[in-house]
Amino acid sequence: MLAALPVSEPLLQREDQGGVATLRLNRPRQFNALSEAMLDALEREIDELAADTRVRCVVLAAAGKAFCAGHDLREMRGRPELAYYQALFARCSKVMQAIQSLPVPVIARVQGIATAAGCQLVASCDLAIAAESARFAVSGINVGLFCATPSVALSRNVSTKHAFDMLFTGRFLDAATAADWGLINEAVPEDQLDAAVTRKAEEILSKSPAAVRYGKSMFYRQRQLPLDAAYELAGDVMARNMMEEDAIDGIDAFLSKRIWK
Amino acid sequence: MLAALPVSEPLLQREDQGGVATLRLNRPRQFNALSEAMLDALEREIDELAADTRVRCVVLAAAGKAFCAGHDLREMRGRPELAYYQALFARCSKVMQAIQSLPVPVIARVQGIATAAGCQLVASCDLAIAAESARFAVSGINVGLFCATPSVALSRNVSTKHAFDMLFTGRFLDAATAADWGLINEAVPEDQLDAAVTRKAEEILSKSPAAVRYGKSMFYRQRQLPLDAAYELAGDVMARNMMEEDAIDGIDAFLSKRIWK
Amino acid sequence: MLAALPVSEPLLQREDQGGVATLRLNRPRQFNALSEAMLDALEREIDELAADTRVRCVVLAAAGKAFCAGHDLREMRGRPELAYYQALFARCSKVMQAIQSLPVPVIARVQGIATAAGCQLVASCDLAIAAESARFAVSGINVGLFCATPSVALSRNVSTKHAFDMLFTGRFLDAATAADWGLINEAVPEDQLDAAVTRKAEEILSKSPAAVRYGKSMFYRQRQLPLDAAYELAGDVMARNMMEEDAIDGIDAFLSKRIWK
Repeated sequence: MLAALPVSEPLLQREDQGGVATLRLNRPRQFNALSEAMLDALEREIDELAADTRVRCVVLAAAGKAFCAGHDLREMRGRPELAYYQALFARCSKVMQAIQSLPVPVIARVQGIATAAGCQLVASCDLAIAAESARFAVSGINVGLFCATPSVALSRNVSTKHAFDMLFTGRFLDAATAADWGLINEAVPEDQLDAAVTRKAEEILSKSPAAVRYGKSMFYRQRQLPLDAAYELAGDVMARNMMEEDAIDGIDAFLSKRIWK
Repeated sequence: MLAALPVSEPLLQREDQGGVATLRLNRPRQFNALSEAMLDALEREIDELAADTRVRCVVLAAAGKAFCAGHDLREMRGRPELAYYQALFARCSKVMQAIQSLPVPVIARVQGIATAAGCQLVASCDLAIAAESARFAVSGINVGLFCATPSVALSRNVSTKHAFDMLFTGRFLDAATAADWGLINEAVPEDQLDAAVTRKAEEILSKSPAAVRYGKSMFYRQRQLPLDAAYELAGDVMARNMMEEDAIDGIDAFLSKRIWK
Repeated sequence: MLAALPVSEPLLQREDQGGVATLRLNRPRQFNALSEAMLDALEREIDELAADTRVRCVVLAAAGKAFCAGHDLREMRGRPELAYYQALFARCSKVMQAIQSLPVPVIARVQGIATAAGCQLVASCDLAIAAESARFAVSGINVGLFCATPSVALSRNVSTKHAFDMLFTGRFLDAATAADWGLINEAVPEDQLDAAVTRKAEEILSKSPAAVRYGKSMFYRQRQLPLDAAYELAGDVMARNMMEEDAIDGIDAFLSKRIWK
């Protein structure tokens, strides 16, 4: 555990344990709002994670009662300029895409509320596990600001009518509904949240690092391609994966145990 | 309520109440079949709604026992010409797309059956609330006419295998299954249908009109773009929304109540 | 029934009955692994089915305890060459796409396990009915080989986070979950599997062959197009379908029974 230092504590904490890097949003009193400084820190840490070959799985967590309440509205109101907002949302969108572009899986560990860009963070992670008490909303509409950038990630996770409903009513989903709709993978009792996240991370760590990286490198790319182009990309990735020692060893071990010979 | 005049009653009724415009298909004895005259009327009314800045939410409703049974097959059989059918389906497709292009949300209020292009209407609306007794099918296949244009809207609402099953067997879904599959948002007891639709419309009316229009202007467009282009569009829309008085006032009101300062 | 000849039995059996062609993978002791010879046989049979106008529905079944365990890993290990693997995956991808390109619906009949490219086969069929005891996984990750080509089909059937979870953990889904997630249409008790598949095939056979072919020719194509282009294609297909005798007769029969005239 990192000590809780009220003053000099970084906005974003990174903690590494055996191949799992945990990034922890650390502005609990501001519900981990994504200020410029927080986006900066995320950008920097994600860049470092992308280059760190020891990291095999990332957990995105958050300190305090809430996962993330989205943008820092107070800061935003301090700079009422179109160009500033355009740059801010562009930078935030870059962070969200950088999560998907990381070479390893990213698991969101969600407690409390995940709203607006906080809900988008959940949608942008590869996997998400939440406490049963967690709640999700793209609630900008409630203050007159449509969650446009969150809608990009949300509508690539849940079905059209569900996404529309959330975006235009600002309604909150409980974790069970979020799991049912595909926004998260799993809702667990709050006291089992860490165990569930650790279990998922360990599952990924038990796999071949090369295979995981091949997979992450193509999963989202193929999804945006027409079927034939998607297969072309996938076939090439899989052929290269087959030439890796991990695959050779894994398959040989499998074959040696296999009943049919 | 509009009086029920057996003769001169319009095919399509519009009724406005405090920002909610209700369009009511009004050929109940023909299960509100989409005749040329009905498509004409829809096209005209939708054009007018698109230009009417007082309208903030549209409800698409239907008179009688059925929501809509699709095209007017009798009329279609009267003009057995390829060019006529091509023009007819092009026009119908234009109406369906015009619903999505309206600057405000459209809620389908569904009772009885919604079949073929009637089911497509439901799929084309942004939100849909149905009586529990309502049933949904793309049943053209049952009379030898594959629901090709309905398949476009349906397959953008429900998953591939579910859509295929409905299209090639003509099977009817009950409202609970339709909600589970994402074709509608909600199934409610028949005697609560109007209340549920009104509640949803009022929820939308309680939001900033500007924010709702920004949202509707980009939601479907971004969904068709690659991720980076979707984010580019969304970021720009959101920045512009931030410059609106509604957002400024809404955020300031939120911040003044907010615990973290 | 085909007699079980231990020696000269073909890898892939075809059995026709009244418009339904059943292709049966027949390497039960190898869990019907997709060896080169099996892919060859599939390619050939699918080509023949595509040209056979008597066939109106295809069932893809498998002999023995398992539906299909994916590629033949032993054979693959015998040719550790990048170019060989690229050609192999390209050929397998061609077979998967050929299933979607068949002019008639293809129903997967699934028992036991469907793993890796076996799960991809299920995802690539138009419809899938499984025994309740069947289980599904894209489990290549467990032997160090990411299921890249299966991910193409899987991620077009189930939601993003569910697909990611399956691909990166290799977890097995039971049939009920597979149905809930949209990977299959239906899970039935094992002793009712044949009856359920036959019922679905007969349902399709009860429809107009022309309408079914029009539908299959456009369903996946329109799904990949932007909305306006999808409607253009669909409108043209539907207009042509309207000129067919089946549609004319079907609609006339419908109208003659119809209450509203």
